[in-house]
Amino acid sequence: MTVLAVTPNPAVDVTYPVDRLRPGGTHRVDGVATRPGGKGLNVARVLHQRGVPVLVTGPIGGADGQLLRSGVESLGIPQALVELDVNTRRTVTIVDRAAGDATLFNEPGPVLTPHQWNQLRSAIVEQAGNAQIVTISGSLPPGIDPAALAELTRTIIAAGRPLVADTSGPALAEVAAAGPTVLKPNAAELREATGIDDPQRAAEYLRGDSVGAVVVSLGGDGLLAVTNSGRWRARLPRPLDGNPTGAGDSVVAAIAAGLRSGSSWPEIVRDACALSAATVRAPVAGEFDPEIYHQLLAHVDVHEVST
Amino acid sequence: MTVLAVTPNPAVDVTYPVDRLRPGGTHRVDGVATRPGGKGLNVARVLHQRGVPVLVTGPIGGADGQLLRSGVESLGIPQALVELDVNTRRTVTIVDRAAGDATLFNEPGPVLTPHQWNQLRSAIVEQAGNAQIVTISGSLPPGIDPAALAELTRTIIAAGRPLVADTSGPALAEVAAAGPTVLKPNAAELREATGIDDPQRAAEYLRGDSVGAVVVSLGGDGLLAVTNSGRWRARLPRPLDGNPTGAGDSVVAAIAAGLRSGSSWPEIVRDACALSAATVRAPVAGEFDPEIYHQLLAHVDVHEVST
Repeated sequence: MTVLAVTPNPAVDVTYPVDRLRPGGTHRVDGVATRPGGKGLNVARVLHQRGVPVLVTGPIGGADGQLLRSGVESLGIPQALVELDVNTRRTVTIVDRAAGDATLFNEPGPVLTPHQWNQLRSAIVEQAGNAQIVTISGSLPPGIDPAALAELTRTIIAAGRPLVADTSGPALAEVAAAGPTVLKPNAAELREATGIDDPQRAAEYLRGDSVGAVVVSLGGDGLLAVTNSGRWRARLPRPLDGNPTGAGDSVVAAIAAGLRSGSSWPEIVRDACALSAATVRAPVAGEFDPEIYHQLLAHVDVHEVST
Repeated sequence: MTVLAVTPNPAVDVTYPVDRLRPGGTHRVDGVATRPGGKGLNVARVLHQRGVPVLVTGPIGGADGQLLRSGVESLGIPQALVELDVNTRRTVTIVDRAAGDATLFNEPGPVLTPHQWNQLRSAIVEQAGNAQIVTISGSLPPGIDPAALAELTRTIIAAGRPLVADTSGPALAEVAAAGPTVLKPNAAELREATGIDDPQRAAEYLRGDSVGAVVVSLGGDGLLAVTNSGRWRARLPRPLDGNPTGAGDSVVAAIAAGLRSGSSWPEIVRDACALSAATVRAPVAGEFDPEIYHQLLAHVDVHEVST
């Protein structure tokens, strides 16, 4: 059975290469690349690349919605995107060839009406009924209260489907209270949600009695998993240089794949750590270098940590 | 009769306001504004705001083409945009609230096939037959040789229609040889086309025997017109602060309006200087502040200059 990868606020990612970014200047862009974007789409791409059956969903609309759908289709990823009377957002990434860095501009996305949210919510609940595991990643569309995401979480969990949520801001605490299977914040998101600096104490706090596991992505420092069956740290001997965009989405993909195949938590965090690092080494988010991934698996140090 | 305002490479102008532009950073854009863009569209907007009958044309296609067309229609500007199987380009402007400046990214636009250029060219020539004056502003679509713009210029002039051209790069010299009524470069474009630093000498050189007049926009220093009936400088006592985007398009609009009503060159340069400055004082390109325009008219100093 499939993983349902939900992106509540997908985007068309547009890349503009420039020779050098000059604030205040006028730049002639010498090529325009577009691709389907959004954190849930990255999760789906990574799962698809690993051969895990996945179905991607989320709201789309307008011409950029069609562009997004055809982009997903051309990647060969099964989709059940929900067409609404909205205009799918864009993100614009300026790639500065001289500095070798990227500057991102994220549009907020279309404001969904309560009726449109209900259409989307009903479709997701129906799709979840046919899935083995559900992931929900990224921001909510403007206008949707974080409580709506908590309600969706409760509904999916009540229907007996494991749910991995990667969200931030006010939605993170709301969703935690709704009892998801796994939460996957990064260290900054976890600190913001709990006010606690120490990642392990913050993860214990966020997990409380209702969350199955909190898996914290720590960037180059690997992962920390606080679960109902123990606590584990996974890390590589040294961090890898590369493009960190999408590394957290690969952690979500690894967790979903591991839960689907019944892996243990030590196995899941090892896999997530290697997959995430192999994503950093790939040129774009939502892809990973399979050779590096297989090499890294043997180098991940996993050990149990005490409370 | 109308002015036909041609934009060979129109765009949807998208504006992203951000608190502060941080190169290498990720920015949440808190509002997305789109409007029809392209230099010929600015010319048409200014003429329309002045009550001069104008028809705007240029190639459009795809969803952004429809967005552009509906934007023009909602401004109340008559249009005869030519639908082609292309995707209209975008420009993205990052407005930095802290720095108070703007950073522009211009997509190159769709590559037109020779067949598509012929479709567009035929439509423009037919529309020009019903116009009193033609303006052509801005870049050519990628793939179109500057010689094609020179050929179009020749055809329109041969049909007895005055033509005001605002172009740059290799197209400027090519169009000059085709005998337009007026060329409107800025100082940098004129220098690039002629290799001559002094604007008056460069304008004399560019005008040669074939161009009716060369009107050079000099930014805060006003205008220089080198014509077949004399040379004039127009300037304000002091330059005005503001947004210079679109100031040159207002010069083109003033020239077209003046030729249409049979004004003398001293009258035209006075009007163009005031209108251009009133555009600098308006928040967006393609608009001008009518009150400031009327106030400034009396303050423009116009004097004849010797060879």
